[in-house]
Amino acid sequence: MKKISEPTLLLDQKRCIANIRKMSAKADRNKVMFRPHFKTHQSVAVGNWFRDLGVCAITVSSLRMAEYFANNGWRDITVAFPVNVLEMERINRLAGKINLNLLIVSVETVNVLQKHLQSPVNAWVKIDTGYQRTGMRVSDKEGIGQLVEAILQVPMIRFSGFLTHAGHSYKARTMAEVHAIHYESIEFLQRLKKEYMTSCSEILLSVGDTPTCSLAEDFSGVDEIRPGNFVFYDVAQLQIGSCLEEEIAVAMACPIVAMHPERNEMIIYGGSVHFSKDACDYVDGGNFYGYVVDLGDKGWSAIDTRRYVKTLSQEHGVLRMLTEDFSRYRTGDVIGILPIHSCLTANAMASYSTLEGEQLDHCWGQSAQ
Amino acid sequence: MKKISEPTLLLDQKRCIANIRKMSAKADRNKVMFRPHFKTHQSVAVGNWFRDLGVCAITVSSLRMAEYFANNGWRDITVAFPVNVLEMERINRLAGKINLNLLIVSVETVNVLQKHLQSPVNAWVKIDTGYQRTGMRVSDKEGIGQLVEAILQVPMIRFSGFLTHAGHSYKARTMAEVHAIHYESIEFLQRLKKEYMTSCSEILLSVGDTPTCSLAEDFSGVDEIRPGNFVFYDVAQLQIGSCLEEEIAVAMACPIVAMHPERNEMIIYGGSVHFSKDACDYVDGGNFYGYVVDLGDKGWSAIDTRRYVKTLSQEHGVLRMLTEDFSRYRTGDVIGILPIHSCLTANAMASYSTLEGEQLDHCWGQSAQ
Repeated sequence: MKKISEPTLLLDQKRCIANIRKMSAKADRNKVMFRPHFKTHQSVAVGNWFRDLGVCAITVSSLRMAEYFANNGWRDITVAFPVNVLEMERINRLAGKINLNLLIVSVETVNVLQKHLQSPVNAWVKIDTGYQRTGMRVSDKEGIGQLVEAILQVPMIRFSGFLTHAGHSYKARTMAEVHAIHYESIEFLQRLKKEYMTSCSEILLSVGDTPTCSLAEDFSGVDEIRPGNFVFYDVAQLQIGSCLEEEIAVAMACPIVAMHPERNEMIIYGGSVHFSKDACDYVDGGNFYGYVVDLGDKGWSAIDTRRYVKTLSQEHGVLRMLTEDFSRYRTGDVIGILPIHSCLTANAMASYSTLEGEQLDHCWGQSAQ
Repeated sequence: MKKISEPTLLLDQKRCIANIRKMSAKADRNKVMFRPHFKTHQSVAVGNWFRDLGVCAITVSSLRMAEYFANNGWRDITVAFPVNVLEMERINRLAGKINLNLLIVSVETVNVLQKHLQSPVNAWVKIDTGYQRTGMRVSDKEGIGQLVEAILQVPMIRFSGFLTHAGHSYKARTMAEVHAIHYESIEFLQRLKKEYMTSCSEILLSVGDTPTCSLAEDFSGVDEIRPGNFVFYDVAQLQIGSCLEEEIAVAMACPIVAMHPERNEMIIYGGSVHFSKDACDYVDGGNFYGYVVDLGDKGWSAIDTRRYVKTLSQEHGVLRMLTEDFSRYRTGDVIGILPIHSCLTANAMASYSTLEGEQLDHCWGQSAQ
């Protein structure tokens, strides 16, 4: 491990590649296309580990991120975010050079695309199967019908099919709940497919969120999966039950800057600008911001749920520790934190350091290209 | 206002300069040194507005930030964070070229500094007056005594005095509570000063958090104030009562990407990677992530508390809107959001656009130097 003097996001490459292999094998077994969401890692280097397994189509969450990966050789990208019509220039730039797949949620957007598109794109109709963030409500048959109809009339837009993100799975806490969401979402999409099969040559169905893709085994009737977070997992996924502790592939390394044995707390250099501010419920009814682990050359120790990040301010983290930790650690030591939400922590840090000390790029950092 | 196609942090330069003038005038009236905390804006351009008013000493929250401002002409910088002994190289680089003021919370750290310092530094003993984050407890007379004694024995370290950050003022919701915290903190520091006056030639007292510095008028007995957030203020400060709505100087401009009149919601391009995830309590007992405002060429409209950011995911924000908003807005329009915590939003965005369309730098962006 390289010498650490500031908060540093450690990446366990072996665990990460194992996570990628496992999900890729599941996609193969189910004969579904594996179109991983790259918004979690946002890294060309990590992307190459997917490419090594034959992945050639990806998902991102912004046109800016699509550009980053397009500039680094990716040629089939879905932007899993409703089309932002204010970015037509970027859309045209991308559509002119890659296979660009967009998400559409309104006839208005179809009209703007029709007017301004300079190259063909593929379009998914985003369906809301219960998350209530974006997408056409399953029950809005009239709206969905009008939208599909509008898309089919624009030669520059090829209708791909129906796509959903069952993000309500993040609120599940049992495997049964996750499974219920998974099968219900697929059933909704299949009903839609049946309805439009006669008027379209091909209708694909795309699903993808880490809890359902991690826990479900049966993807019958689905054409592609788009999980993202599974590449690293995190404490939130561990709480849902999507992963084992041994599958969490990132940890923050943070210098200890103050000791408070009188209240069983240590202060680290590592705050909300490093971790982001996502929290999980702690057993005492409050929140916490990550678990504390010990770092070693080969990675990090197991979780002891009594050691956790109690609060975060801009640059400080307050750790709740055990009495015995105060004889094991002192100011100037480096300690590990398993983050609550790895996507946001990676985004805040914008760079990775592997356990072997290699620096990996992130879209928002400067080491890529 | 410049053409906006992605989430953009707008800065109302007039409001910002008015905030700076007001606090500077208060410091002058009280004859205390004004050493503003630059962690909120982290911008050389905004820093220059302070310099225009004669400010020449500043506060930052990391050595990295100290380097940023030292590279841009600031020569007297307090790093208001416990010394991170793993960054001795940076400390020596800075101490060799500027007047560097450090915060010390342990004899261990004094020993490391004694061994490795190559140039003189000033040291504040950080006192915890009730926030319970970092610092020596007021009641720990023995510990404080040992620490002052240790500092006085190191020729390279000049003892400046006692410093506190009464961060518990952020939990206050009435002026009386803020005042109580303010006067109690000062009283604690003054008692310490009296105790050590005979053994030290000079002992300065430094306080500073935006609620107390905004609401208190009397700073008798204090030598310097270090507020930071007041430069922009935000919804959290409005809830505390530290500012008027008209003093909030930043707003995010976000494209609307989907409309959901059936549930009075709109979806914006603007999520937790743009705002950060800090929340305030909403009147219904839940949380919210910012207020919605209308944008115009000269700034933004007044708050209507019924229009707010209900949830944030990585790139999406879900806005709770009024029925009439659905005839005023459509997909592709840009709407404003007043952030909950301007320090974190500015840190996430790492750039500003003034209402006149000028781009200003931020430490984490790339437009500075």
